[in-house]
Amino acid sequence: MTPSGPGLGRVETQRVVLFTQDDPLALESGRTIGPVEVAYETYGELAPDGGNAVFVCHALTGDAHAAGHHGDPEQRGWWDALIGPGRPLDTDELFVICPNLLGGCAGTTGPSSPDPEDPARAYGLRFPQFTIRDLVAVHRALLAHLGIERLRGAIGGSLGGMQVLQWALDAPEQVERAVLVCASARLTAQNIGFTAVARTAIMRDPGFQDGDYVGTGHGPAHGMAIARMMAHLTYVSTESLRLKFDRERRRGHDTHQTFDIDFEVESYLDHQGRTFLGRFDALSYLYLTRPMDYFDPFAEPGVDLARVGAATRFLLVSFDTDWRFGSEHSAYIHERLAAGGVDAVHEVIASPWGHDSFLLDVPEYHAAVAGFLRTRPAP
Amino acid sequence: MTPSGPGLGRVETQRVVLFTQDDPLALESGRTIGPVEVAYETYGELAPDGGNAVFVCHALTGDAHAAGHHGDPEQRGWWDALIGPGRPLDTDELFVICPNLLGGCAGTTGPSSPDPEDPARAYGLRFPQFTIRDLVAVHRALLAHLGIERLRGAIGGSLGGMQVLQWALDAPEQVERAVLVCASARLTAQNIGFTAVARTAIMRDPGFQDGDYVGTGHGPAHGMAIARMMAHLTYVSTESLRLKFDRERRRGHDTHQTFDIDFEVESYLDHQGRTFLGRFDALSYLYLTRPMDYFDPFAEPGVDLARVGAATRFLLVSFDTDWRFGSEHSAYIHERLAAGGVDAVHEVIASPWGHDSFLLDVPEYHAAVAGFLRTRPAP
Repeated sequence: MTPSGPGLGRVETQRVVLFTQDDPLALESGRTIGPVEVAYETYGELAPDGGNAVFVCHALTGDAHAAGHHGDPEQRGWWDALIGPGRPLDTDELFVICPNLLGGCAGTTGPSSPDPEDPARAYGLRFPQFTIRDLVAVHRALLAHLGIERLRGAIGGSLGGMQVLQWALDAPEQVERAVLVCASARLTAQNIGFTAVARTAIMRDPGFQDGDYVGTGHGPAHGMAIARMMAHLTYVSTESLRLKFDRERRRGHDTHQTFDIDFEVESYLDHQGRTFLGRFDALSYLYLTRPMDYFDPFAEPGVDLARVGAATRFLLVSFDTDWRFGSEHSAYIHERLAAGGVDAVHEVIASPWGHDSFLLDVPEYHAAVAGFLRTRPAP
Repeated sequence: MTPSGPGLGRVETQRVVLFTQDDPLALESGRTIGPVEVAYETYGELAPDGGNAVFVCHALTGDAHAAGHHGDPEQRGWWDALIGPGRPLDTDELFVICPNLLGGCAGTTGPSSPDPEDPARAYGLRFPQFTIRDLVAVHRALLAHLGIERLRGAIGGSLGGMQVLQWALDAPEQVERAVLVCASARLTAQNIGFTAVARTAIMRDPGFQDGDYVGTGHGPAHGMAIARMMAHLTYVSTESLRLKFDRERRRGHDTHQTFDIDFEVESYLDHQGRTFLGRFDALSYLYLTRPMDYFDPFAEPGVDLARVGAATRFLLVSFDTDWRFGSEHSAYIHERLAAGGVDAVHEVIASPWGHDSFLLDVPEYHAAVAGFLRTRPAP
């Protein structure tokens, strides 16, 4: 299913304070945080019975701006291929909600927000660490604010899928259909290792200043670049890098060896790294990666799969060339759900683009999502 | 084949000046370098007819000390499992030679050696860049110094295998049997990307000081640690990390989330990173990784495989869980050699340990090497 038609037009980001300093969000750790302001966007119209809402949970570096544009029709939201009139999340039929995550840096309260204890400075590392369940608690507060009791669906890729899973396990009555795209319920040692290296690169950069770089005019630019370059290599497949770059050298470069950028893949990674600090915050990178390492919901006591299966059905999508959260991650989730009698389908989609496929227009994937959200009856 | 018996005893590193400032090594780039001193070790006795010599080419962070010990029998050379009496490179029968590479930091002239133009300082980035062929030119000069005309075999893993391949393609009459263990003749964009990130981490570390950190008392410690942590993740398989660490937390650690080291795999990688600067030089890391990116010998004009096939036979070994230079790299070399009528065998060995398998005691691998070097007749 290729995006057709013009897509959504101009959209606006909205903001709402869901928790205050006096009535703060209670985190799973026992700590609290308030105020919590949330930036979010909605697309489409909520049906009078409230039964057409789909909640989008974004991944590590996403934001509330999932679809449409903010004035320049060429600059469209990160999941515009998936969301809009006639698209898999069909806004002619569905009401789509997408907030920026707690701990993020695109409008929702996070570690670079002013610390209410000392509003002249940002929280920095004084911001409390949180869990995937805490991210979902904020989503649920937003849903209550919007007056919606039950979602037609919740969908997310990667870290987004983790939120959907936690939500459906904790409050299945609120999620009729859960779509987890290349998610994981249990990071491997290799997964943990790669983000450990990325965090190390950021935290050991002298520009990090123990987390108090906000407002100083310089931050951990080198560390962020290195983290991003390395992470990006894990988001794309060996095959997609070969297709895009192979061993091509930069045009016009002489044939002498150099430590400077020479191969096209180096130039591409360097660009990814250099632009990252401008569009994402180093503290948010730390705060949003760490909960993934700890996420292991099926290992928790009290998971009630009978209750989950009575209320929620699952679509798990994975991509055959994804080596960050490969199909074995989705297979593990599927196995755990199926063992508990939950209705779950796992579709392994062929795509050369690795983990990044969840952001791209892969027709078989889009068709699977569209079919699951629109045509299958609720249980 | 498990290492049996006590192995080699005490061994000594020798040094020889193979090129002088007046009679320097001419590099493939047209630049020259001299003096070039080489550190090397030998094990076993050279036969009167000189026909039992096997040359060992080390990988990125190896050195001349491949087997035996320097005084502490517990501290043994990096390939001790492969070299010694009764081992695959059987020193009761063979004369084994292993030099430190040009550009290295363990006795052979490299970028941290004194610059003859200004002996009070190290070369730094003024050291000329070189190719795999240049590494082999130094090996061949060492061989001439030792009075050996033809090798029973040349063997190397990873970067070591690249040297063996270049040697056999350029001077097949000098190499009766070539053993390439998890080598590559053509890095992928992903391979190039990972080393690009590692070099970026080193060169952007303020401690790198544009390469002039030698003698200043501090170097690019953070950059080296990050490079090593990331590279190490590519040397080991997903499965080996799972077997060693899975999701284990450090003993006694509380259950709160922390950005500090918490998972065992983080502790392991941190240790790898922290100890690396003490045992390896950042400039050597740059100079020895970059030639791998450019290495593409079958793309060169003038490769004479008929000549190669008349003089040299090949054993290619790869490991099924290696994702740095996986079996497809060896399969490519095999395909190119076989298409030219060269006698080449490719053995894909099952081993859970990924790229690192070439350093480990994997019985099927050791048996293949032993059999190839000892029992098969020369062509």
